[in-house]
Amino acid sequence: MAQRVVVIGGDAGGMAAVSPIRGRQPDAEIVALERGGWTSYSACGIPYLVGGVISGGLPRLVARSAEQHRDAGADVRLGHEAMAIDVERRTVDVASPAGDHYQLPFDDLMIGTGGTPVRPPLPGIELPFIHGVQNLADAGRLLQLVGEGGCQRVVVVGSGYIGLEMAEAFLERGCTSTVIDQRPQPMGTLDTDMGALVAKAMTDRGIDLRLEVAVTGFDDGVVHTSEGPVPADAVILGLGVGPNAELAAAAGLELGAKGSIRVDARQETSAPRVWAAGDCCESMHRITGQPVHIPLGTYANKQARVAGINIGGGHAETAPVLGTAITKLCSAEIARTGLTEAEAEAAGLDQVGQVIVSTNKAGYLSDAVEMRVKLVAERGTGRLLGAQIVGGPGSAKRIDTCAVALTAGMDVQQVLDLDLAYAPPFSGVWDPVAVAAREMLKRL
Amino acid sequence: MAQRVVVIGGDAGGMAAVSPIRGRQPDAEIVALERGGWTSYSACGIPYLVGGVISGGLPRLVARSAEQHRDAGADVRLGHEAMAIDVERRTVDVASPAGDHYQLPFDDLMIGTGGTPVRPPLPGIELPFIHGVQNLADAGRLLQLVGEGGCQRVVVVGSGYIGLEMAEAFLERGCTSTVIDQRPQPMGTLDTDMGALVAKAMTDRGIDLRLEVAVTGFDDGVVHTSEGPVPADAVILGLGVGPNAELAAAAGLELGAKGSIRVDARQETSAPRVWAAGDCCESMHRITGQPVHIPLGTYANKQARVAGINIGGGHAETAPVLGTAITKLCSAEIARTGLTEAEAEAAGLDQVGQVIVSTNKAGYLSDAVEMRVKLVAERGTGRLLGAQIVGGPGSAKRIDTCAVALTAGMDVQQVLDLDLAYAPPFSGVWDPVAVAAREMLKRL
Repeated sequence: MAQRVVVIGGDAGGMAAVSPIRGRQPDAEIVALERGGWTSYSACGIPYLVGGVISGGLPRLVARSAEQHRDAGADVRLGHEAMAIDVERRTVDVASPAGDHYQLPFDDLMIGTGGTPVRPPLPGIELPFIHGVQNLADAGRLLQLVGEGGCQRVVVVGSGYIGLEMAEAFLERGCTSTVIDQRPQPMGTLDTDMGALVAKAMTDRGIDLRLEVAVTGFDDGVVHTSEGPVPADAVILGLGVGPNAELAAAAGLELGAKGSIRVDARQETSAPRVWAAGDCCESMHRITGQPVHIPLGTYANKQARVAGINIGGGHAETAPVLGTAITKLCSAEIARTGLTEAEAEAAGLDQVGQVIVSTNKAGYLSDAVEMRVKLVAERGTGRLLGAQIVGGPGSAKRIDTCAVALTAGMDVQQVLDLDLAYAPPFSGVWDPVAVAAREMLKRL
Repeated sequence: MAQRVVVIGGDAGGMAAVSPIRGRQPDAEIVALERGGWTSYSACGIPYLVGGVISGGLPRLVARSAEQHRDAGADVRLGHEAMAIDVERRTVDVASPAGDHYQLPFDDLMIGTGGTPVRPPLPGIELPFIHGVQNLADAGRLLQLVGEGGCQRVVVVGSGYIGLEMAEAFLERGCTSTVIDQRPQPMGTLDTDMGALVAKAMTDRGIDLRLEVAVTGFDDGVVHTSEGPVPADAVILGLGVGPNAELAAAAGLELGAKGSIRVDARQETSAPRVWAAGDCCESMHRITGQPVHIPLGTYANKQARVAGINIGGGHAETAPVLGTAITKLCSAEIARTGLTEAEAEAAGLDQVGQVIVSTNKAGYLSDAVEMRVKLVAERGTGRLLGAQIVGGPGSAKRIDTCAVALTAGMDVQQVLDLDLAYAPPFSGVWDPVAVAAREMLKRL
């Protein structure tokens, strides 16, 4: 009898496993359950859709539709929700769109249930004017907000990547955007000195940024804060994403970092032939060696591919992660990889941080603008621990240089010695990353 | 008595040694000889100056003037030319601007004589309408050409980086630009399949590109070619740069790759305490392990810094090179590092080349354009040997990812596993470099 694989979740964390399974097991029966109406979509694209720089509406964010998956031999069931997993009997209890339940047996189970926007237990948090930015149903509701015409007052609670991207998107559509964050600087994945640069880019663009302010609750049309009420036609949750692991937990699967599903390097959970990938599961951090929950689209795709190879009978392992992340926000490109100074300190490392100011082009070109690079290195060994970059065009993807150096375990001298590319439209003769390494060497 | 260091050459290959010497030997006497009128300038900036995107004229290309060097304690002598080196008696014979000769004794000699545009021995090659693009005197003459007003017919012979950048710069100024090259595609540092993309960007922009055409000689106002005469008000040498090593050769110093000055990893020549850096000397190639002559501004700066540390009594070594190089040309960003397929084959390696087409942003963004990545890997081991990238904005500096991977000796699986940054304004969820690695893995 052919191998039967059940996939729970229609986005990357589930569906990116299908092709590597199919490539190895042409006869496998693959059934995919998606409780929503879309498969393989880019949630990261939602701010750009709302901001108006994507033409074609919601379907443009779909990389592979249910029909395309079906044509490739996957039995995709939209509107079908997995309600329970029995790892002993090896069945999934499924609710159909009509509300009927049926049992779906599996040989392998691929869990890609994704993440959920963090929703703090505040009074009024379930009010309908509060929106997550997680799936295409959310995207549809957000598009309606800007489509209804007239200026809207939008309040973003928290300052994670997608929340800030939404703040800018609403500005682009003529709304006002207020961002409320308890921390001293936005974007808690950066050190505060680098976060301050993001704050400046936001306020320069006209975002009303309220730092060190606590949200205390919601009423219709109002966000209550430690500094008084803030009127709001819509609220965006920008506090990050937690793992959607309830189904796995109820099935008795072992959980790990921040309640995400524990997996080994092959993406297998604590139950044999039950696999997980994406925002619902944990990763291994390359620098600290500790399990972490870092919900990123790149990881979902890579992890699901690894799971698929293993489900198909091959052998693959997921590489440890660095939390490399970038965004473009107002005039700033923003990037980080590895450990921030604060994270290195929390990990008990003896770290040194060094920020340099350089330019994104040769300084003599009329349109050169600032680029700031922060390196974090280990005192004594000089080993690179992490990097952050904030600056004009060309800043963000510079972080990959540091990500590869971290992967190779390079020290700061080795970073300085790298044969990095130079031409006047892209930097001074010393790349900003090399400048940072050179200055760090003097410190160490 | 204080250590006396004589530096020959006022640009980076000489002067970038001064600060590391001074830092270690505050009392050293440093005499710098520059036969021209400028120090520490960016020759790479000349096309942008001529193209009109730098305001402020020639002085804007000077990173550190003679006065600034003097203020920092270097005795800079403009218009003084080193005519001969006696490595036994440890003196330099210098011609002053007035034509007098004097002997300058040294403890350490730093040779940074730079490079010279390749000038093939064709009839008429010394005619005054033929220009190199090497120093600020050249830059002044080139600026005069565009400043004299009226449309000029400019012919670029060869298609090295700076020649092509000049072709575009003259177009920007309302001239016509013709590029004549004997090869089947422009930019011989790329494989021809990638060079074809550069050709398209050039012709789309209106550059008259004549490939597989040989230049046979020059008369005033005419370039003679294998396909007949081409009228020209000015000719730009775009055949690359050779080492300016005559002085070193006459002094009996050992020469290496392409007649450049042989140096060890500390930048010391075959004569003790005689050092060289920059376009006049050779480098060691990281992949082939062979000495090479690759004239790049980044190498001049790094090598001179290493020489300066050693002259100052420290110890430093220059890292092997990859020939990482980028430019922006018309609508294309162009990049290469490591070995091309042709170079790998010439080095006797069993190589596989793989080109993929991706985009410089998520495909659903309205302004996403193509990015092509070519990886070259070793069959059997899967070791990465080189990479080339041609595409829209954001393409060029992507090459650094590959340069770091090459430095770390990574194989293609390790490149695929890299934790590269992703956000929709910068790529699809799989970075184009990762896409190329994924496709290469299928081939290997």
